[in-house]
Amino acid sequence: MASWAEDTRRFLEAHRVGHVATTGPDGAPHVMPVCYALDDAAVYFVADAKPKRRPARELERLRNLRANPRAALVVDHWDEDWTRLAWVLVRGPAAILENADAHAEALARLRARYPQYRAMPLDDRAVHPIVRIEAASVRTWWAADAT
Amino acid sequence: MASWAEDTRRFLEAHRVGHVATTGPDGAPHVMPVCYALDDAAVYFVADAKPKRRPARELERLRNLRANPRAALVVDHWDEDWTRLAWVLVRGPAAILENADAHAEALARLRARYPQYRAMPLDDRAVHPIVRIEAASVRTWWAADAT
Repeated sequence: MASWAEDTRRFLEAHRVGHVATTGPDGAPHVMPVCYALDDAAVYFVADAKPKRRPARELERLRNLRANPRAALVVDHWDEDWTRLAWVLVRGPAAILENADAHAEALARLRARYPQYRAMPLDDRAVHPIVRIEAASVRTWWAADAT
Repeated sequence: MASWAEDTRRFLEAHRVGHVATTGPDGAPHVMPVCYALDDAAVYFVADAKPKRRPARELERLRNLRANPRAALVVDHWDEDWTRLAWVLVRGPAAILENADAHAEALARLRARYPQYRAMPLDDRAVHPIVRIEAASVRTWWAADAT
C-alpha cells in the first residue's frame, strides 16, 4: 500500500486514458482503454460507463478478473518526438468494489477527473461496477532518462 | 488470415500507438504501448526500438510470448467528446519473426509509418526482435454506433 512517488502521481493525474490488461481463464490476454482515478494506494475505473451492447456484468474484463484477480494498467505519453515518451505501469490485485461507500468514494474521484461522468447515473454498482487495482508494483520509464 | 474491414484498416492506419497485452508464465497480465504496422493478416511491432536499460531479449513481453504465445493489441481513439471514442481490438497468436526476410519486410512497414525508425539500426533481429500478432480475432467499437 505504498503511496505514489511525486513525479508518478503528477504524470498519472496529467494524463487522461489508461490501458488495462487482464488475463482470461484460458490464459488469453485482454486489453481495453479506460478512464481512471487514483487514491494513495490504487487506481480505479468504471467497467461500464460508456454505452455498450451488453450488460456490464458480462464484460470480458470482469469475467477475467473474477477468474484471475490481477490487472496491469499502463498510462503513457505519446509524442512524435520520442525523447518525450514515457509510461507508468501499475500492477497488482484487482477487485470489483462491493462496498457501497468504497464505490461512492471511487466514483467521486472519477467524477472529479472526468466531467463527462458527472451527468451519468453510475451510483448503482451492480450496473456500473468499479474496479480497484492495488498499486502493488509501480514501474516508470521516461525516454529522457534512458538515452 | 482474414484481411481487414475497410473502416478498421483506415482506423488502424490513422492512429499511432497501440497497447499490447501479454500474459506471464504465472498468469499475470502485462501491457505496454507500442508503435505498430500492419499487413493484410497481422500487426507488427518492434519489441525494443527505443533505448532501454536491459537487452531486448530479456524484455518481459518477450519472455511472456515465449511461454504463452498469445497477445491482444488495442488501438483506440481518445476524445473529451465521448461520442467520438472508438477502439479496435486485435487478438491472436503472437511470435517473434525468426525469418530474415519476414523481419526485413515488417521493418519496412514500420519505417513507412514511423520516420523515427528510419534512422535507427534495427536490422539485427536478435537485438531488435519484431513481434507478429496474427489478427485471428478483430473486434471494433465505435461510440457513435452504441448510443
